[in-house]
Amino acid sequence: MTTNEALKKLNALETELRAYNHALGCLNYDGETVAPRNSAPARGETMAFLSGIIHNWVTAAETGEIIEALLSDRDALSLKDRRRAELLKQERDDLTLVPAEEYMAYQQLMAEAMQVWHDAKLASDFAAYAPYLDRIIAYNRRFAQRKNPDKNAYDVLLDGYEKGLSHETLDPFFDLLKAHLTPVILEVAKRPRPDTAFLQQSYPIHLQRQFTEQVMQIMGLSRDDCAVGETEHPFTEGFNKHDVRITTHYHEDSVLSNLYSVVHEGGHALYELGVGDDLQGTLLSGGSSMSIHESQSRFYENLIGRSRPFCELLLPKLRALFPRQLAGVDAEKLYRAANLAEPSLIRTEADELTYSIHVLIRYELEKAMIGGDIATADIPGEWNRMYKTYLGVDVPDDRRGCLQDSHWSFGAIGYFPSYALGSAYGVQMLEQMEKTVDVWGAVRAGDLSPITAWLGERIHRYGQLLTPAELVESACGGPFDAHHYVDYLKKKYGELYSL
Amino acid sequence: MTTNEALKKLNALETELRAYNHALGCLNYDGETVAPRNSAPARGETMAFLSGIIHNWVTAAETGEIIEALLSDRDALSLKDRRRAELLKQERDDLTLVPAEEYMAYQQLMAEAMQVWHDAKLASDFAAYAPYLDRIIAYNRRFAQRKNPDKNAYDVLLDGYEKGLSHETLDPFFDLLKAHLTPVILEVAKRPRPDTAFLQQSYPIHLQRQFTEQVMQIMGLSRDDCAVGETEHPFTEGFNKHDVRITTHYHEDSVLSNLYSVVHEGGHALYELGVGDDLQGTLLSGGSSMSIHESQSRFYENLIGRSRPFCELLLPKLRALFPRQLAGVDAEKLYRAANLAEPSLIRTEADELTYSIHVLIRYELEKAMIGGDIATADIPGEWNRMYKTYLGVDVPDDRRGCLQDSHWSFGAIGYFPSYALGSAYGVQMLEQMEKTVDVWGAVRAGDLSPITAWLGERIHRYGQLLTPAELVESACGGPFDAHHYVDYLKKKYGELYSL
Repeated sequence: MTTNEALKKLNALETELRAYNHALGCLNYDGETVAPRNSAPARGETMAFLSGIIHNWVTAAETGEIIEALLSDRDALSLKDRRRAELLKQERDDLTLVPAEEYMAYQQLMAEAMQVWHDAKLASDFAAYAPYLDRIIAYNRRFAQRKNPDKNAYDVLLDGYEKGLSHETLDPFFDLLKAHLTPVILEVAKRPRPDTAFLQQSYPIHLQRQFTEQVMQIMGLSRDDCAVGETEHPFTEGFNKHDVRITTHYHEDSVLSNLYSVVHEGGHALYELGVGDDLQGTLLSGGSSMSIHESQSRFYENLIGRSRPFCELLLPKLRALFPRQLAGVDAEKLYRAANLAEPSLIRTEADELTYSIHVLIRYELEKAMIGGDIATADIPGEWNRMYKTYLGVDVPDDRRGCLQDSHWSFGAIGYFPSYALGSAYGVQMLEQMEKTVDVWGAVRAGDLSPITAWLGERIHRYGQLLTPAELVESACGGPFDAHHYVDYLKKKYGELYSL
Repeated sequence: MTTNEALKKLNALETELRAYNHALGCLNYDGETVAPRNSAPARGETMAFLSGIIHNWVTAAETGEIIEALLSDRDALSLKDRRRAELLKQERDDLTLVPAEEYMAYQQLMAEAMQVWHDAKLASDFAAYAPYLDRIIAYNRRFAQRKNPDKNAYDVLLDGYEKGLSHETLDPFFDLLKAHLTPVILEVAKRPRPDTAFLQQSYPIHLQRQFTEQVMQIMGLSRDDCAVGETEHPFTEGFNKHDVRITTHYHEDSVLSNLYSVVHEGGHALYELGVGDDLQGTLLSGGSSMSIHESQSRFYENLIGRSRPFCELLLPKLRALFPRQLAGVDAEKLYRAANLAEPSLIRTEADELTYSIHVLIRYELEKAMIGGDIATADIPGEWNRMYKTYLGVDVPDDRRGCLQDSHWSFGAIGYFPSYALGSAYGVQMLEQMEKTVDVWGAVRAGDLSPITAWLGERIHRYGQLLTPAELVESACGGPFDAHHYVDYLKKKYGELYSL
């Protein structure tokens, strides 16, 4: 096969894969947002069937020949074509490890597990969910062992979310966070708690929906390209630059929960929408890695969204919708409430200071789960023990404990560290950005486009063309160093709590 | 190929088709409800691609062999297997008339046309929509000519929605309606108009959403099996007995519009949900024909939903949500307002008396469109002329004129007569039902399950196993006779308007 022939075949394969992945993404989004509860089994069958077709295409002998023809002529290829071939090879290598039937059964299992998890969470019934989680863990362990029997299985999974990542990087990373942040958390606990009583009121959901529209407008998210769904556990699904979906979960008694879901998922959406035109619809669309993706979402959520200027910007808009609830609340009060730091139960609603401890707990737990050190049935107990040890909180039920996150249900074991890494990347990016962009002027003006343009230029437009390491280097102005993150948190919370 | 081999292959093909159709249905539903506006072209590509695969499967030589093997041994087959083979043959015969590329291009055209229509309707801009409609008309005309070059092209299309239907049935049907109903419409126009001022107020949409839940509960539509979407032009999409979607369109100033959309689409949903377990997931799931489907939706919407007992049932529920708006309104006043009969602009909101005249106009127009008697550009003028002639109303803009319906955009030309036929079937069904079921007792009790059970027994459970004619015979207790429908309308409106 000549290189030109291989490129033509690659294009054709890309078209096939795009269609199947679009359909799968749509079924998934529908399932997580609007589908009726009992629809899961039939949707699972369809998703398994379509996944099986992708499996067939990717593992087909001809696909191997295409990849080989391209990579044996590597130097003649453009960067884009080389990366396309490399990514396809990576996916092919992975899928080849799993027979089609096993792969399809796993897809169906996940589709059903999402529904079972959803119900189990609402009922706080871990036992109902355990058999599904058990099979998902077993699949991941088996997969990791096949992929590299000589390597620590959890490291193999981590590498799947961020090339090269392993416990050798993460152990010291989390140790650093623990060492620097735990004393701050303890000190903060001794200080007076900011007044958050104004948040514990009824904020009618139909008004919160209006507020979502305003937040999206500030972020530059056009409703013509970006829809908003409602779901149990917010996520983002991106199809192309004219079709991205964010999701949120409205709680009548928690107006900030929706706000920060929208800002977080909006950060993911801006990444997906910003992928360069030349990469749209190719294997290189979408984000480079989960931690780079989370660096964008957590950037908007925290560095921007929980800043003083952003609270100043939002307060009048919130007050227009909720005049009674926010009577007597000024921007500083909102800012302090939005940055209340205290050990708590729910990761997605945790403050920036304690957030990475929530992630650390999941990291430790996943290591043990995949390493076979704890049985599935012991997860709730272990979860609760670690929340007590690391954060000093008592977990009252599994709904607010080990059933709170959706990730394991869609097979994502090894994903959580991305949140902490991404949060840390973001701080270095902000420091770089501030050198040339009037970040806080943009926030005050209620138009984040200069911020998004900077990120777009250095990260978004590259899609999966560059590696995570290359993107970090490009946007952080140097290699990653978690001390920036730690210093940022110490400074922010030192000022907030007069430490 | 033995009959047994053919049946095995038929089962496998059915599994393939079910998965592709599920994915297509999901993409379509998503596109019509929650997808962002600019998503249409990429969705169109994916839908065209998946439709192309269905086309390939259905037109494949082996599929022909399966059908032939089965139908050549017709008498040995169960009714179910024979019908599966017959339906597949029908679809294969149709698809074989259209080359795959042309078929895929048409699917993409329709996906895009839906979006263009949506925008054009809002902007009342027929010119923007005309090129799409033009190509849809041309495709349908071409298809009809290929299918049967010796037959009137519009008759060929009608036959696609209801086997055996042609202008020879429909011309006298509509003539009968015109002859009997026009004098009543004229008489009604001379009588005092019921007071509907209480409807022209603000009925906040978030409260209307709550009302939808109550209406679904009365209808016995479980939210675990049936979702509610919001869309421009309400429709129903059914996947299986645990996954049906109805849609509605909320208008703040028109609380009855949502009510009757939900009841209408709910009728479709009950049909889809009631298909027998043995037919689920087979080629025989779904409704027997469009007019049978509309007989169910219009049955609930009008015969039940616009009845006096139903208005009595709903009033307290409505008043609990809208006490200010409904102060001083009694059930009789609601009943009379819900049955206001007067020539109007919008088919879906028309009263029962004038409704079939709206359908008649579309029937006449489609005959002329497909017959080549009018050019696409002349449709708005012709539409407006007929509304003036038949209903005496002036159409102020195309939004409320020829752009009001979505049907042509999804290729449905020849569908509209189903609404009038279905409405007429329903009256005969009700007369039969009343012989053994306490219909109005059930309505007063707020539990329609005895009604649904009767329809389920005679219609729903059969899916596509029986022909429309067989179902009409079974549920109407004899052959169809439109006089029942005409008599029902004369009696109802005679009483309402003291004629």
